[in-house]
Amino acid sequence: MAINNGDFVRLNFTGKIKENDEIFDTTFEDVAKEAGLFDENKEYKPIPIIVGGNHLLPAIEEAIVGLEAGDSKTIEIDSENAFGPRNKQLIQLIPMKEFKRQGMTPVPGMKITSEGSTGKILTVNGGRVKVDFNHELAGKDLIFDVDVTEIIDNDEDKIKSMIELHYAAPNMDINKTVIDIDGDVVNITLDDVAKFDQKSYMDVTFARFRIAKDIWENMDFEKVNFVDSFEKKQEEDEEEAEE
Amino acid sequence: MAINNGDFVRLNFTGKIKENDEIFDTTFEDVAKEAGLFDENKEYKPIPIIVGGNHLLPAIEEAIVGLEAGDSKTIEIDSENAFGPRNKQLIQLIPMKEFKRQGMTPVPGMKITSEGSTGKILTVNGGRVKVDFNHELAGKDLIFDVDVTEIIDNDEDKIKSMIELHYAAPNMDINKTVIDIDGDVVNITLDDVAKFDQKSYMDVTFARFRIAKDIWENMDFEKVNFVDSFEKKQEEDEEEAEE
Repeated sequence: MAINNGDFVRLNFTGKIKENDEIFDTTFEDVAKEAGLFDENKEYKPIPIIVGGNHLLPAIEEAIVGLEAGDSKTIEIDSENAFGPRNKQLIQLIPMKEFKRQGMTPVPGMKITSEGSTGKILTVNGGRVKVDFNHELAGKDLIFDVDVTEIIDNDEDKIKSMIELHYAAPNMDINKTVIDIDGDVVNITLDDVAKFDQKSYMDVTFARFRIAKDIWENMDFEKVNFVDSFEKKQEEDEEEAEE
Repeated sequence: MAINNGDFVRLNFTGKIKENDEIFDTTFEDVAKEAGLFDENKEYKPIPIIVGGNHLLPAIEEAIVGLEAGDSKTIEIDSENAFGPRNKQLIQLIPMKEFKRQGMTPVPGMKITSEGSTGKILTVNGGRVKVDFNHELAGKDLIFDVDVTEIIDNDEDKIKSMIELHYAAPNMDINKTVIDIDGDVVNITLDDVAKFDQKSYMDVTFARFRIAKDIWENMDFEKVNFVDSFEKKQEEDEEEAEE
């Protein structure tokens, strides 16, 4: 069955810069290693998205409409439809003394963060450092090789796919998620290890909100409950009986 | 009705050291201010406990069995039954250079923490600092003035009282807690602000576990669920309809 907007799919992709074939992102471990992008904290496997859900560049999501599971497609995206044009005003000269004040020695190629934006140092000349705050892919035409590996068709798997996408608790086993559907309410009980997440409760709430929102907007449910259960253990009853 | 073990009660108390009448803890704001103990982060009001639940010194919980709501009692507890005897081995000489290494200047009366124990500096003599790691109330006979203000008799209020005791999310309104009892399962939905707690998810889990355990052990429930709900807002439907 051909993919429509709102479908939940899994896909592999490799993204390259058109002008020099440089790979900047991929879901394949071997490709990542070869390109020097390998990140040991990342799981290399097909990623779940909702088509039209703004999980990838809109141009990619549009391009896979009409494909079927197993199909591959090479998608060319011009810079306007990828990360936009390069903006010269985002190239700034910063006095060297700002770096010294923070105990930093600027070097070309180094990445820095200022007021939430990430910039790359272009040149260091005397007392001035030239920093480019454009997105690294701004102004670049891109090519994505995409393979659709699966169209997810049952509700439980759709819900689990959004947990996989948005919720990254360390060591959490997605197969231990219990999904209980009750009319227009979804009750989600995650793997018990998610209870021991060191992240702030608020950060977890934001991840849960994103899951819930993707479910409301793309499935016939009105409410998503995350349930943490604490159950009296049989052993405790026995211990009490022995006392 | 007289208080029994396992009852949920609220009480006010003021604790004093017998030998000098020094107040070290109280639930009354005016008493705390007068004794120089006032803490603006603490709510001064009767605290909820389970009698025999180890929420206060066992000797206090034993002493209130048989009282009724509105009763007051002065309870004398010898050091053995309070914080135990003072142990001379917990008085330690620490080389001054350990303090210097951490940029600290030890002064008598200063409190320090070492490997999870809190100690009070007694003397500073030349290169050695004498620190007492005994509990500040070790070796002291204590007097508690206790007023039982309420015996909590309905299940919903009992559950809420344990949330009040164990769960301190900033600005959380206990009256916005929704308790839904379904057979031997308790479903708890907290005030929405609890979702935005900055504490780690794990710390919140530990607080919830203490609540659940007090409920299992003292009420006829086997399972406690904490439910975080994310509901599609009517406004969003309307926005979508307009698009």
